[in-house]
Amino acid sequence: MRPMRIALLQADPTVGDLAGNAARLLALAHQAHAADAHIAVTTELAITGYPPRDLLLSSAFVEAAERRASELESPLPMLIGTPLRHDEDDQRPLNGVLSIGGGKVRRAHAKQLLPTYDVFDEARYFSAGRQPGLVRGAGGLDLGVTVCEDAWQAAGLTPSSYASDPIAQLAALVGQDVVLDATVNLSASPFHQDKVEARLHVARTAAALLGHPFLLANQVGGNDDLVFDGASMVAWPDGRAVLAPSWCEGVLVVDLEDPSDARWVPSTEGDALCLGRGDLTHLGPNEDPTYDALNLESIVHAVVTGLADYCRKSGLERIVLGLSGGIDSAVAACVAVEALGADAVHGLALPSRHSSQHSRDDARWTAEALGVRFSEIPLGPLHDAAEQDLGAVLRAGHAVAAENLQARLRALFVMGHANAEGAMAIATGNKSELAQGYCTLYGDMAGGYAPLGDLWKMEVYALASYFNARATEAGRPAPVNESTFTKPPSAELAPDQLDEDTLPPYPVLDRILRAHIEEGLDRASIVERGEDAMVVAEVLARLGRNEHKRWQMPPAPRVSRRAFGQGWRMPLAGRHDWRD
Amino acid sequence: MRPMRIALLQADPTVGDLAGNAARLLALAHQAHAADAHIAVTTELAITGYPPRDLLLSSAFVEAAERRASELESPLPMLIGTPLRHDEDDQRPLNGVLSIGGGKVRRAHAKQLLPTYDVFDEARYFSAGRQPGLVRGAGGLDLGVTVCEDAWQAAGLTPSSYASDPIAQLAALVGQDVVLDATVNLSASPFHQDKVEARLHVARTAAALLGHPFLLANQVGGNDDLVFDGASMVAWPDGRAVLAPSWCEGVLVVDLEDPSDARWVPSTEGDALCLGRGDLTHLGPNEDPTYDALNLESIVHAVVTGLADYCRKSGLERIVLGLSGGIDSAVAACVAVEALGADAVHGLALPSRHSSQHSRDDARWTAEALGVRFSEIPLGPLHDAAEQDLGAVLRAGHAVAAENLQARLRALFVMGHANAEGAMAIATGNKSELAQGYCTLYGDMAGGYAPLGDLWKMEVYALASYFNARATEAGRPAPVNESTFTKPPSAELAPDQLDEDTLPPYPVLDRILRAHIEEGLDRASIVERGEDAMVVAEVLARLGRNEHKRWQMPPAPRVSRRAFGQGWRMPLAGRHDWRD
Repeated sequence: MRPMRIALLQADPTVGDLAGNAARLLALAHQAHAADAHIAVTTELAITGYPPRDLLLSSAFVEAAERRASELESPLPMLIGTPLRHDEDDQRPLNGVLSIGGGKVRRAHAKQLLPTYDVFDEARYFSAGRQPGLVRGAGGLDLGVTVCEDAWQAAGLTPSSYASDPIAQLAALVGQDVVLDATVNLSASPFHQDKVEARLHVARTAAALLGHPFLLANQVGGNDDLVFDGASMVAWPDGRAVLAPSWCEGVLVVDLEDPSDARWVPSTEGDALCLGRGDLTHLGPNEDPTYDALNLESIVHAVVTGLADYCRKSGLERIVLGLSGGIDSAVAACVAVEALGADAVHGLALPSRHSSQHSRDDARWTAEALGVRFSEIPLGPLHDAAEQDLGAVLRAGHAVAAENLQARLRALFVMGHANAEGAMAIATGNKSELAQGYCTLYGDMAGGYAPLGDLWKMEVYALASYFNARATEAGRPAPVNESTFTKPPSAELAPDQLDEDTLPPYPVLDRILRAHIEEGLDRASIVERGEDAMVVAEVLARLGRNEHKRWQMPPAPRVSRRAFGQGWRMPLAGRHDWRD
Repeated sequence: MRPMRIALLQADPTVGDLAGNAARLLALAHQAHAADAHIAVTTELAITGYPPRDLLLSSAFVEAAERRASELESPLPMLIGTPLRHDEDDQRPLNGVLSIGGGKVRRAHAKQLLPTYDVFDEARYFSAGRQPGLVRGAGGLDLGVTVCEDAWQAAGLTPSSYASDPIAQLAALVGQDVVLDATVNLSASPFHQDKVEARLHVARTAAALLGHPFLLANQVGGNDDLVFDGASMVAWPDGRAVLAPSWCEGVLVVDLEDPSDARWVPSTEGDALCLGRGDLTHLGPNEDPTYDALNLESIVHAVVTGLADYCRKSGLERIVLGLSGGIDSAVAACVAVEALGADAVHGLALPSRHSSQHSRDDARWTAEALGVRFSEIPLGPLHDAAEQDLGAVLRAGHAVAAENLQARLRALFVMGHANAEGAMAIATGNKSELAQGYCTLYGDMAGGYAPLGDLWKMEVYALASYFNARATEAGRPAPVNESTFTKPPSAELAPDQLDEDTLPPYPVLDRILRAHIEEGLDRASIVERGEDAMVVAEVLARLGRNEHKRWQMPPAPRVSRRAFGQGWRMPLAGRHDWRD
């Protein structure tokens, strides 16, 4: 009987840590071997971590990565994702796959389709492979080999079409009586909402076209502004599928002949990522995975993973944040506690003369409910001293200068504490206000990471409810006080100031911004959907005017189809609101 | 007799301003017509400005640009650089050239080689053309047509090789008796040091291979972090060449048959860029252009153009900066005055208890010599108030927290003035200290633009001498006081602090950083050059540790072969100092 058990190694590599990543892969390979797998398959560029960015410009780095992958002393045959030197000196390296086992090292594939859009820049770094990937007798199996994007053209899910289609190439070989047991796909496919469904469509399409099982191993964990959800999967030609857990490091072992014979082996590494329930999902031929309405749990896991991995991989152990009593900082505190634990979080309340008593109460409420260290430092004396020096300037100038001064004084305290304590400050702003410039550069935008920076305001409210419900279920106090939900949002930087004095109500604002940023609709198309023409014009004008803040935003974990911020590559000067 | 006079329109377009750019091109076309040119050739993507970045993701934008180019009512035939819709809906647009004239609009070319490295991201936005560009009877001429990178493969100046070579294709056609009068190249080729020589090599190589004149029209002006020097040029097969002035907007009119018959017509637009002498350069077959040793004048023009155009294109009319009495802020003030005029600049001296009297004197000296508005606001009272609130935290923690506090208090004043006055703050830091993290995030790094952010410290000294010499020649006081050159550099954030307490001497630091960042050398290779191994290790470790500041740096005009900052796409978390 032919061996038929394949292990997908769903690892959380650290970019650039070749030795550490090799050790991590080796540990998972041993777990796969212990689970009776015949071959193990890693994720894309598993040895370097994805995305390695400009590290790939160093030929010494590429050579070291390839050597590390070649020399891995695995207890079972493996297919390993690694950059490969190009045969020709004047060409970029390949995004490749090495087959190791039985003392042999072979090049099994070089990625053919190099995504160069959105968060992907692969044409900057790689040469494209030109042949379908095939490996014979690896762990006794004959396999088709693809890397991530290679499989997306066949599913019609790329923003523009490539000249070749690696799945169609493999299907043509199968049609010419080349016998393959399965096709594998080494992926580093970042999370965004609805991404699991997209990947499942890719896997089922490929399995159906190829007539054999299609196995997709996906990276998990956070690297800078990208988060990867894992959810490695296997699809069979009839549409049945098995999904590994999201947001967990471990090994998915499947028997190609029996979808019901699948196992999830969690990583035993001490710092292994593991959020959520860690269950396998078995799907029938026409069955889709089910989630809560907003897929809230995934969003929470994404932002928590993003922050937790950013800190772990940067060697940061403590977080400081300002607690204003508003919804954003309360939810950011919840995320920080999930990511690093309550002991690692310090909340600072910095009330000014414009802060309401309920805000001060709500800030303290959140800190106490979460059990984090809490300090209240009234801004009064410093605020007075600053206005003494700047008063004449502020009175004579734009009103926003005085508001910004307050936000920047707070940043001074937050950063002072962070620097003194060796902690990282986090920025607590959301995507709606960042996109509108309703925030202060070097004020509330200050911080090394912005966990909510890719969440719309209404999503922040939903997360607050989620954290409260979960706390209540567990018999703990709800971290976001009820009044935080019901009071009208206010920056509290001027007397009786409300966000709605400047911005449309958040449900309206979010609809307009989503349509423009995520769907790419222009003003006319948004108005056609029934939005008020004047409101749309104002929102888009503010977006354009505040472009310049984008350049200096801290990284935020990407949870949407399209971010505002560093991923939004609009011109800064000139006409973002282009005119004809 | 055949018409033989071609005009190269060296324009400074504003990204996204289709109507404005069309008007600008039309005005230059009229000047070209008045100078008896038979055809006018624009720069690459002249109608949109380069780089249009994500604006190109909007099909409405691409269509509007193409329509604007098509409908230009030019008094003479033109070749216009514009994005073009792709014939196939599932493909990205083309980076193209339209030929207009005699009531006809034809597609003359689509760029074949799409640079996707360094500051270029063209594979993100464009499909590649597949044929050599030819246009017959345009203004009576038969021309080969190329766009920027198309001509660089033949000169061997691309970091990796492309599969095709458009110059070789055209040369092959010429070899098959296709008669061409000349080949034109529409460029948006950004400045860096030695770039004119590189472009001249490209033009001469192409002319020699083609056996006819090669004409390169290059964009001028600043867009975000890119600056373009113009220096449009014509090369003949024997190596003779004519270069248009750098850093000026205007029209180069040349007679193909007579290199000595070339004219430069400066733009008559009121806001036209014009720095330097505005002379044509005529070169013999083996002659290279001559510059001062460091090419200092070009660097000055680059940073002045970057700042001036960033302000003009963003609608900013005033600049605020902190004047510390150190060399960086003195030179930044010189640049700001060159860019916007003395009346538009406000220098703030914010001395603290650690500031020396000579620094206070030097700050005032610079302001008075430049004739800018000057305010001195002692930091004392606010500094005391902040330490009152934060004292215990600061005393118990890392020393850097207290130093950062001071820098951030200064930023508070600079930003307060900027916001109140509707001005832009500029950050005055240089590339050496930014790369070492020897600067304060939200402190001296605060500002909308960092004019010196891509200059090494020793280049800043050279610029100071340059500005002084020029002022002295003109009978004006030298803006950088002599003591600013001779005193040991100090951040003055702690008693008796010197930069050399933390960093190696700047000549050493600059050599090491240049070798690593610009030449891509690793530690071992730098030590092999004779640098101290321990010093190299410390410098590279600081570079890695301070990576996170890079994400939040303001844009800086690119003057080097490789920037540190936003153009440096290293991973933030993980191991920038990758380890094997």
